[in-house]
Amino acid sequence: MKTDAIILTNGRLQDIAAKTAHGLIRGTDRFQIRGVIDPPTCGRDAGEVLDGKFRDIPIFDSLEKALDTIGQVKYCIIGIATKGGILPEEMKPTIMGCLEKGISIVNGLHEFLSAKPEMVQLSEQYGTELLDIRKPKSRSELHFWSGEIYSVKSPIVAVLGMDCALGKRTTTRMIIEACAAHQLNAQMIYTGQTGWMQGGKYGFIFDSTLNDFIPGELEHAIVTCWKETQAEVILLEGQSGLRNPSGPCGGEFLVSGNARYTILVHDPKREYYSHHININKIPDVSDEIDLISRYGSEVIALVLNTANCSEEEAHRFQKQYADELQIPVLLPLYEGVNEIIPIIRQLISTDKK
Amino acid sequence: MKTDAIILTNGRLQDIAAKTAHGLIRGTDRFQIRGVIDPPTCGRDAGEVLDGKFRDIPIFDSLEKALDTIGQVKYCIIGIATKGGILPEEMKPTIMGCLEKGISIVNGLHEFLSAKPEMVQLSEQYGTELLDIRKPKSRSELHFWSGEIYSVKSPIVAVLGMDCALGKRTTTRMIIEACAAHQLNAQMIYTGQTGWMQGGKYGFIFDSTLNDFIPGELEHAIVTCWKETQAEVILLEGQSGLRNPSGPCGGEFLVSGNARYTILVHDPKREYYSHHININKIPDVSDEIDLISRYGSEVIALVLNTANCSEEEAHRFQKQYADELQIPVLLPLYEGVNEIIPIIRQLISTDKK
Repeated sequence: MKTDAIILTNGRLQDIAAKTAHGLIRGTDRFQIRGVIDPPTCGRDAGEVLDGKFRDIPIFDSLEKALDTIGQVKYCIIGIATKGGILPEEMKPTIMGCLEKGISIVNGLHEFLSAKPEMVQLSEQYGTELLDIRKPKSRSELHFWSGEIYSVKSPIVAVLGMDCALGKRTTTRMIIEACAAHQLNAQMIYTGQTGWMQGGKYGFIFDSTLNDFIPGELEHAIVTCWKETQAEVILLEGQSGLRNPSGPCGGEFLVSGNARYTILVHDPKREYYSHHININKIPDVSDEIDLISRYGSEVIALVLNTANCSEEEAHRFQKQYADELQIPVLLPLYEGVNEIIPIIRQLISTDKK
Repeated sequence: MKTDAIILTNGRLQDIAAKTAHGLIRGTDRFQIRGVIDPPTCGRDAGEVLDGKFRDIPIFDSLEKALDTIGQVKYCIIGIATKGGILPEEMKPTIMGCLEKGISIVNGLHEFLSAKPEMVQLSEQYGTELLDIRKPKSRSELHFWSGEIYSVKSPIVAVLGMDCALGKRTTTRMIIEACAAHQLNAQMIYTGQTGWMQGGKYGFIFDSTLNDFIPGELEHAIVTCWKETQAEVILLEGQSGLRNPSGPCGGEFLVSGNARYTILVHDPKREYYSHHININKIPDVSDEIDLISRYGSEVIALVLNTANCSEEEAHRFQKQYADELQIPVLLPLYEGVNEIIPIIRQLISTDKK
């Protein structure tokens, strides 16, 4: 049973910062997205703004207009992921407006609403909730790595990226859906706040976990998922990039999560690590594949994010990387991800041997 | 001005789990260590138990005996680091005894004393403090990576290990001291709770930091240190090992901390990652050096932890690795670390060019 919610992006819907909103517009099993508040794009459909596909999610220029049209909702979700997880000042009036109208807030930022006295006061006064989903768990809820990961008998595949904000989560979801359509029981381990918002059952929020417990939380999520679902294949939503200086990350999935296979996501037109234009060059894909192999994991496919490419360019890049790397190169935007299905079937049968 | 303290190891002083105590016995600028409570080794000197060097730190079999002999102290430091940071049940009576005698507790475990009502009640009743030094900072105290690291003009050297609990912190301290003795201004960035207890001014506690803020906290510590001390070289205390499944770690130092040089610590007799006997083999040192080079860092020396070797074996390993790797191989236990000084001088002069 999905709960009605609106998303607040406050003018940033077309920006990469709204990746939380983008994920929710693409699909969520936790919420029924009834609308988006984003003045510059108001009057349009959020799906059309995102990728040209109509999804019946209207965009409004204010909270009042939204509620006049769609009626009351239970939640307002803050739909952006800012650098450092700071809450933009200009969002506060709308958030407080929601609380006053009996709407609870879902917040995936590092800055917690429950630490703001004015928000707590309003939420108590109007009986609403402040869900800070990145709030760290306490020690007693956290798991330490034990090696139990080696009891999982199905192949584990990490979906890593050359950088952050490349579509790792979306790629993972598309593959899970393609597997389901082909009668394969594939399960996803979410590792970001959007994964939770989309209704993920197995996972944890990587970047708001105390470092010491990341391997154990990851292992616990995978082992629990495997025991409960008998998944034939488990996909791990990766985070950041192995050598992204603002948050190097990846060894945890490959080593602690025992992901002996990797699907690597890349934007062929992105030259520098995001957030740090002209400082740190993204390495060659072949060099990254070699690095990943040092962690004991084989890259079984490259996925190209071609949002900034023409269709012709996308196919040219596909051919170029396939020739160079001799692995399948997927273009989800133009061809979907079905090409991965026989490869996954192969993994499953090889692993069973 | 150092504050009087005793260390509680409760029978584990000779175990690797007491590495917090071992570091404090070796030296701390924050506390004056007056004694250790450890029944199996009572009557001996803690320095002699540790490495054969007398340090005038008596060992007692109980809190009462300790206080009878040395008089009152301000702090009792929990001297062990357990798997998962759990407080051993058998330590609780002594900790509560301390609180009742007006002694405050320094706790570097993940399990916080300030979350235990019985401890809080005693500490309030007797006016003592519960210092949970691994308690995570709040968002407003944390830094996000900005790229300011590239303003640091002195070489940055990461002291990494092939595994955890190999002596990375001790190696770092020894090198800092050797530099000082040779009129080199070297500074250390601590990254563990023991580093803080030893009086480190620049650093943070890596494993109790929310993952998203590790690169920024590291950068902030290095930049602040460089600005305030004009260090000629900065050494980063590493954590764990790059491919240790219970906590893979290292990219942060190399990429976010811009450590273009690495000193690698290794135990030539340790075959498997610690805590997980017979599961995960530690890779070859040459393979690790190659992996580190992929993160843009050059291994300038190998340091051997020869605590489990005879002197003859130690020298044999030294020759073997030096022949194979063609880099200096240090034996701190037998030869100190002075051999690193000309290498560091070389880095400083090369970097200035």
